[in-house]
Amino acid sequence: MFESAEVGHAIDKKTWNAELPKLRAALLNAQYDLAEHKRFPVIIVIGGVEGAGKGETVNLLNEWMDPRHIQVAAFPEPSEEELERPPMWRFWRALPARGRIGILFGGWHTEPIVERATGHLSAAEIDQAIQRIVRFERMLVDEGALLLKFWFHISKAKQRERLKALSKDPLTAWRVTKLDWKRFKQYDRFRRTSEHFIRQTSSGTAPWIVVEGTDARYRGLTVGRMLLEAMRERLDEKKVAGQPDRTPPLLPAIDGKDVISLLDFEKRISKTRYQKQLERLQGQLATLTRDPRFRRHAVAAVFEGSDAAGKGGAIRRITGALDARQYEIVPIAAPTEEERAQPYLWRFWRRVPRRGRFTIFDRSWYGRVLVERVEGFCSEADWMRAYAEINDFEHQLARAGIIVVKFYLAITKAEQLRRFKDRQQTEFKRFKITEEDWRNRKKWEGYHRATCDMVDRTSTDFAPWTLVPSNDKQLARIEIVKTLCRQIERALDKG
Amino acid sequence: MFESAEVGHAIDKKTWNAELPKLRAALLNAQYDLAEHKRFPVIIVIGGVEGAGKGETVNLLNEWMDPRHIQVAAFPEPSEEELERPPMWRFWRALPARGRIGILFGGWHTEPIVERATGHLSAAEIDQAIQRIVRFERMLVDEGALLLKFWFHISKAKQRERLKALSKDPLTAWRVTKLDWKRFKQYDRFRRTSEHFIRQTSSGTAPWIVVEGTDARYRGLTVGRMLLEAMRERLDEKKVAGQPDRTPPLLPAIDGKDVISLLDFEKRISKTRYQKQLERLQGQLATLTRDPRFRRHAVAAVFEGSDAAGKGGAIRRITGALDARQYEIVPIAAPTEEERAQPYLWRFWRRVPRRGRFTIFDRSWYGRVLVERVEGFCSEADWMRAYAEINDFEHQLARAGIIVVKFYLAITKAEQLRRFKDRQQTEFKRFKITEEDWRNRKKWEGYHRATCDMVDRTSTDFAPWTLVPSNDKQLARIEIVKTLCRQIERALDKG
Repeated sequence: MFESAEVGHAIDKKTWNAELPKLRAALLNAQYDLAEHKRFPVIIVIGGVEGAGKGETVNLLNEWMDPRHIQVAAFPEPSEEELERPPMWRFWRALPARGRIGILFGGWHTEPIVERATGHLSAAEIDQAIQRIVRFERMLVDEGALLLKFWFHISKAKQRERLKALSKDPLTAWRVTKLDWKRFKQYDRFRRTSEHFIRQTSSGTAPWIVVEGTDARYRGLTVGRMLLEAMRERLDEKKVAGQPDRTPPLLPAIDGKDVISLLDFEKRISKTRYQKQLERLQGQLATLTRDPRFRRHAVAAVFEGSDAAGKGGAIRRITGALDARQYEIVPIAAPTEEERAQPYLWRFWRRVPRRGRFTIFDRSWYGRVLVERVEGFCSEADWMRAYAEINDFEHQLARAGIIVVKFYLAITKAEQLRRFKDRQQTEFKRFKITEEDWRNRKKWEGYHRATCDMVDRTSTDFAPWTLVPSNDKQLARIEIVKTLCRQIERALDKG
Repeated sequence: MFESAEVGHAIDKKTWNAELPKLRAALLNAQYDLAEHKRFPVIIVIGGVEGAGKGETVNLLNEWMDPRHIQVAAFPEPSEEELERPPMWRFWRALPARGRIGILFGGWHTEPIVERATGHLSAAEIDQAIQRIVRFERMLVDEGALLLKFWFHISKAKQRERLKALSKDPLTAWRVTKLDWKRFKQYDRFRRTSEHFIRQTSSGTAPWIVVEGTDARYRGLTVGRMLLEAMRERLDEKKVAGQPDRTPPLLPAIDGKDVISLLDFEKRISKTRYQKQLERLQGQLATLTRDPRFRRHAVAAVFEGSDAAGKGGAIRRITGALDARQYEIVPIAAPTEEERAQPYLWRFWRRVPRRGRFTIFDRSWYGRVLVERVEGFCSEADWMRAYAEINDFEHQLARAGIIVVKFYLAITKAEQLRRFKDRQQTEFKRFKITEEDWRNRKKWEGYHRATCDMVDRTSTDFAPWTLVPSNDKQLARIEIVKTLCRQIERALDKG
């Protein structure tokens, strides 16, 4: 893996002087094209050995291009707010918007490599981490990002030389820490781990580019040229017709049976039983969320369902049991400008709850595979890949102790019609039905199908769907609060 | 102050039952009107005595209205990320956008009151804090917010009763902490401090509303009605013609002398001296920003200036001396959708640097008193009040240890013309001059005047302006890096 990066690559001063002005002008031009059209973000990940010129190269890129359109993020020890969320949260925070260049100095690769090389991760665990990273990077690329990963390498002998030289110069001595020397002693182990990691995370769409770091001119020119080429290629690309619309390999509904149609929509609850049960369950929910153990967890509760299925009323029954200082309701409407300039999951990552908090999503990331699919707002390829991306996302939440509870409130088509008409008649003006509601209703079958597929593909052990027949609103609420209590209780007991 | 809140206000159940449905429907309606038109945010500040029903009332508001359009923020101990920024940062983070209701449970009033009552703040210091709060709230109101401040009060005897009752019930016992009892013992002192505070911070535009907290129905109905009335008044308001355009009391330029025209635009530096000096100064800057003492500070460097004055080049000379992991450049263009839904300083608060960081603003909050004033993008009243608001903002930064360094790069009108023509001739397409540049040039006098006023009104001891004659770009860069070093050095020496 590293052989080509130990051959002693070097560029003489004359070549450098001849090449540089052209390269800089071209890079600057590419950068302005990028900023002007805002078609994609450029994500540059910088990894590699200490002393191989990572920092110098980043400084060089800032000098060559317009630093106003570049953002550099480094990842020292995570802050308290970062520690209270899934590990990937801080990288999501640092992603550049379309039209910008983001340099991630160290990134999602650093921790798994260090943990493995220092013996804190088993071989199986690093492979799990690798698989997660591969899927994450694939998502970035699918979302349109230009992802470039540079690995700076120097041989062991060169590293020793480099660290010594840095230590001697008073201007750079601060950069060499005890940890660096400790890591140097583990060079061979780090090399083995890195090699495995680089090999496994070099996909066709996001390969690592290993750069020999010994000669400053060589590494600078290499990175500059590769960046230019990659940007130019994307910028000059003719708009292609997009991926062909494949018929997705989803289960056909040949006998008319599916998870929704099998729900019991006839069941009812009496008013007195409802009131008694609700009160008891709300008390239970109040106690659970005030349990000291809850402070190590958080809840992300997702509400999806047909129009008029009763999401709002159900949410109110939950919040009625909570302390207003503890919860947040996130109503999901069209994304804002800043959100549209990022991968689609970005806007949900922004709202991931901290420990001890209770976040309710009134509609959610499932919009991708429901409304966006049915209305054709995204391509088939986009929503097909979303199932796996969403599972990865929720898995990260669950691993961080967040209890992911998902409800789909289902009503029958006849019941929806009854409620629509009912709403039209109440004078309470806000509940008047909109044109859009009638339009959505015409696509009932499409939504039905999309919902079944969604449940099939995203109901997981760590974040199961609960389908709630909601023709009887009160029964639905009982079911919802009960499920919520059960899932929180289970999580608290597991610890 | 509290007399009216100790008379034993109470509402009987019959009145409550008769009033409630109407109130709820009306509140809900008002809330939807608010969400639909997005004309202003509603900020509800909740303060007062423990046990006076603050939490219960907040829960009630959430129950009565649609909680999806309400956000509640509580302010326990600040997080590490919050501690690394000025104290007001966390409140800016919690402000609701236009169209939403934000409930601040505890707010900017809590800390000064507690600090004063516990003897950590002198009488003079709390009055300073009060003045800052008054100006901050005035700004919120001027920016269009509907600000409602409720103070929940109960007598000492009632508080004892209340705390005892809460302690007994296993469901509420968690709410009563040792600290609450400790505070109870200091009731009289807190009462005195609060009274002073409430009196001083009750301005005509944002008075405190003191609510007796003993009777749940009384306090609920009071808050609900006041909120409804205030929202309705604003929602139903006819669009008034706006404040009359007063001729602002700014110094007239009767003798043609001003801070810009007095600059020496003729001075030049030789290329060799420039290179030598720049290198030395960059070395100094590098050393200063790596000084361990710098970790307790941060830099906010502001760049303003005429078009083509050389801001970009100057910024690059600074970043050339910094570690790319340490700095961030914030180019200020038109605000995004999310930013437009907030007070105008909000988008700068978002980018306030953490400790140890170096943030460069390429154009800044001064847009309000430059481009927005000259182009008429905001009313005269708006930019007139901005001077004081900006001074308050920068004062907060300075008090938090952030070194605020502000540069205005000035060139003569003739020099600008030369540079524009020059740019038009270079083939390097991006530097081609835009129509807008020529348009701005026609307003030269307006910008000149606005700049002089800006310097007069915002050059402060804690955040002085440095006017840099920039007809010689190289000399300007030397001046800038030198000033930066001097100001950082001074701050580090002060500690």
